[in-house]
Amino acid sequence: MSDLREELNEEAQVPADAEAPLRALAAVQGLLQQYRQADETAQRPAPGEAASDDTPTETLTPQQLLLALKAIIDALHPADIANILEALPPPERLLVWNQVDAEHDGEILLELSDAVRESLMAKMDREDLVAATENLDADEIADLAPDLPRDVVEEVVSALPLEEREQLRAALSYPEDTVGGSMDFDLITIRNDVTLEVVLRYLRRWDRLPDHTDQVFVIDRDDLLRGSLPLNRLLVNEPEVMVEDVMRKELLTFDPLDDISDAAHAFERYDMVSAPVVDAAGKLVGRLTIDEIVDVIREEGEEQALSKAGLQEEDLFASLLSSARNRAPWLLLNLCTAAIAAFVASRFEATVEKIVMLAFLMSIVAGIGGNSGNQTMTVIIRALALGFITPSNVSRLVRKELLVALVVGSIGGAIAGFFAWAISGRFTLGVVMMAAMMLNLLVGASIGIVVPLLRARFGKDPAIGSSVLLTFATDTMGFLIFLGLATLFLL
Amino acid sequence: MSDLREELNEEAQVPADAEAPLRALAAVQGLLQQYRQADETAQRPAPGEAASDDTPTETLTPQQLLLALKAIIDALHPADIANILEALPPPERLLVWNQVDAEHDGEILLELSDAVRESLMAKMDREDLVAATENLDADEIADLAPDLPRDVVEEVVSALPLEEREQLRAALSYPEDTVGGSMDFDLITIRNDVTLEVVLRYLRRWDRLPDHTDQVFVIDRDDLLRGSLPLNRLLVNEPEVMVEDVMRKELLTFDPLDDISDAAHAFERYDMVSAPVVDAAGKLVGRLTIDEIVDVIREEGEEQALSKAGLQEEDLFASLLSSARNRAPWLLLNLCTAAIAAFVASRFEATVEKIVMLAFLMSIVAGIGGNSGNQTMTVIIRALALGFITPSNVSRLVRKELLVALVVGSIGGAIAGFFAWAISGRFTLGVVMMAAMMLNLLVGASIGIVVPLLRARFGKDPAIGSSVLLTFATDTMGFLIFLGLATLFLL
Repeated sequence: MSDLREELNEEAQVPADAEAPLRALAAVQGLLQQYRQADETAQRPAPGEAASDDTPTETLTPQQLLLALKAIIDALHPADIANILEALPPPERLLVWNQVDAEHDGEILLELSDAVRESLMAKMDREDLVAATENLDADEIADLAPDLPRDVVEEVVSALPLEEREQLRAALSYPEDTVGGSMDFDLITIRNDVTLEVVLRYLRRWDRLPDHTDQVFVIDRDDLLRGSLPLNRLLVNEPEVMVEDVMRKELLTFDPLDDISDAAHAFERYDMVSAPVVDAAGKLVGRLTIDEIVDVIREEGEEQALSKAGLQEEDLFASLLSSARNRAPWLLLNLCTAAIAAFVASRFEATVEKIVMLAFLMSIVAGIGGNSGNQTMTVIIRALALGFITPSNVSRLVRKELLVALVVGSIGGAIAGFFAWAISGRFTLGVVMMAAMMLNLLVGASIGIVVPLLRARFGKDPAIGSSVLLTFATDTMGFLIFLGLATLFLL
Repeated sequence: MSDLREELNEEAQVPADAEAPLRALAAVQGLLQQYRQADETAQRPAPGEAASDDTPTETLTPQQLLLALKAIIDALHPADIANILEALPPPERLLVWNQVDAEHDGEILLELSDAVRESLMAKMDREDLVAATENLDADEIADLAPDLPRDVVEEVVSALPLEEREQLRAALSYPEDTVGGSMDFDLITIRNDVTLEVVLRYLRRWDRLPDHTDQVFVIDRDDLLRGSLPLNRLLVNEPEVMVEDVMRKELLTFDPLDDISDAAHAFERYDMVSAPVVDAAGKLVGRLTIDEIVDVIREEGEEQALSKAGLQEEDLFASLLSSARNRAPWLLLNLCTAAIAAFVASRFEATVEKIVMLAFLMSIVAGIGGNSGNQTMTVIIRALALGFITPSNVSRLVRKELLVALVVGSIGGAIAGFFAWAISGRFTLGVVMMAAMMLNLLVGASIGIVVPLLRARFGKDPAIGSSVLLTFATDTMGFLIFLGLATLFLL
């Protein structure tokens, strides 16, 4: 029974309802506020030295508050502790971090965003880092390794059993965005020439099965993968049946160098919980599980949203300097493109001098071209991500997008033209406005199609950087087309 | 053994490698192209009636091509067939759809995007729809129900066993974005006062366990949830142990009315595969599984990307009309805000008339303000989504974002000011440019913070619509500030 208890305690603490972590965060923030006040009071002792005895009972000492804080933290799941750390400004974050049981440090670091993890690891000394890392699995150590000092990694590696040392070396050898970079080594393997009864007895010898074990892998004497026995089949078939007769022989396997994002699509499509990873020789080397895949999917979505705004993941309470460093490059890039567009427009100074109204209308042409191109680009990037675009349908797609731009451009152009006519009293200006709008929507649609397709063609993420190019094109061309037509027809 | 075979065949066909679906799509497109050509040839018979006998052996007849197509399709997983349908233009899509075995229609419809599903269902007659729907589980029928004609739903409902009819009614009663709208009813329940041996024997009576069964639920005589027995614990403990002694008593449960997106965060944080759904009385009513959660996470990411461009999910080959209808409202909305901004700027016609260079510089001020505000907004929306923003840290966050805008604005403003000075030769214009940039970056940061916070406060999705307001504010205020300062200091 004591074994059992231990096992139960080993499982991380999941709360009884989904709101509990929010309440814990609020409680922690409340305690921290009291702590700040208590700390200030302690530093400015009231006149009269016996004051510490007279402290009203409802006011806790800083030490008591820290104990209360620790009690809350200790009851939480590592992922919830990580979330609390993310939501706290640096000094309080460090205070809470110091209350965490050292044995959970590693699990929590794994759950943190890169930025916050780095900031906490920078404050840990060598000993703490070794302690936090040494209890982790090889694949988890590999995740933390890039942020660890070299000598800490070496110390942890040298303490590992030979098998895990090799796993760690393997995990470190694969890039982050590959299957190999996300796989784990928690494999249960069996042979095909035994009965299910034998498998059941074998499993009872484990203290607990690895998380997300929905199948055990069937290998031969050379570690080559022969199939898999889903627990489902293990449980519904009679014990005397042979593994060979009920195992799944046709399996979706991944290569360690496969793109993790392709693997995520496969997990999604086929509703998998785990999948085997085999090397080129067919040898089982690892396992991919749905929890890693969920993280990949969420991170991809976040990264896309951030990269569209020209950002990298950022600690919510990053220092002023590091925030500014994260944001300035994008703004300076946009400043350059905007300056070039403005410079192009300024070549028509003589035209604008004569018809000042053009100055106010030209930004409409540029803006709507950008909006429309962004729609096209979003549609194309989504279709590329889902694998819907193939050589045989791409020309049809291009035609369709250009036609849509033309239709929408006619409607929008007519309205904008009418507005221009109304505000300026010049009919020809209205016509120029309409023509410029339509043409600039075509520019936007073309860039919105071509840029993501080309980036995807050359193996780049189609989302990143495309929007700068789009805005640059629709601004510059918008000014050029509108002011050019105006110079031709209005002067 | 025949039972076993049947079970194996029931499982959907997962390919051996992740690239297989792409090859299948290419093969289908190739066959369709041949079919189109063969079809055209057949309609324009060559002179000489005996031509059909002389057909070279390498050219297949349209019938043979359709058979080849069907052979490819039949070997695919429903999710892969759905993907192929999404990637085909409407006439070919329908052709492929007609080759699908009617018994798989339902599963495929469930995997399709709303737009494509609706288009295919519109082409199906009553009988096909009933056939496609009647073999699905209650929760799956509920997913299709909104697109089905009322009488089809009624016919399907009336054919269901009583229990499933009630499940369907329950599933239909919950909104799509709740736990109830995503749960299934594939529950395996056991009692707490039996041994694991009894549970193992009970499970052997099933033909197969429901997908994603990683735990069986322990209920009492009133269907109240008492705990859960993870298969993990069932397998590692001795058969004579009682369920009561090894079951998990502290469980994260969901209410059918909980927000599905909160549930997704919980699955992500606690790495769950399934979770029980209980009603207010504590009665077990359903089960949430990771495959539904993965879909939710992916859809949320996609919806956010689309809504930022003012789009709804759209069939890649939607008709011109429906595409234009999807995109025009957003562009017209942006046209309105751009026209208002232009109108505000035009109030300074007299100023611009005197210094035409202002016309070209004002768009830089507006644009960079929008870019910077978008960065702030992206950071805030992400922090809101992750639950990092609380009443106790919000003022700190606001202060930080405004300071970052000020720092970045000083750098960008200095550069832009220098550019303005260089291009115009007027030092004061450079100073006005710099001041306007800094002020407009503050406008952008304020809107980028306040709008998402307010929308979240009132229970709206903070991402939707925020960007229109942002662009409107940074354009209008950018023009106003820049031209206003110019009027004050340059005339």
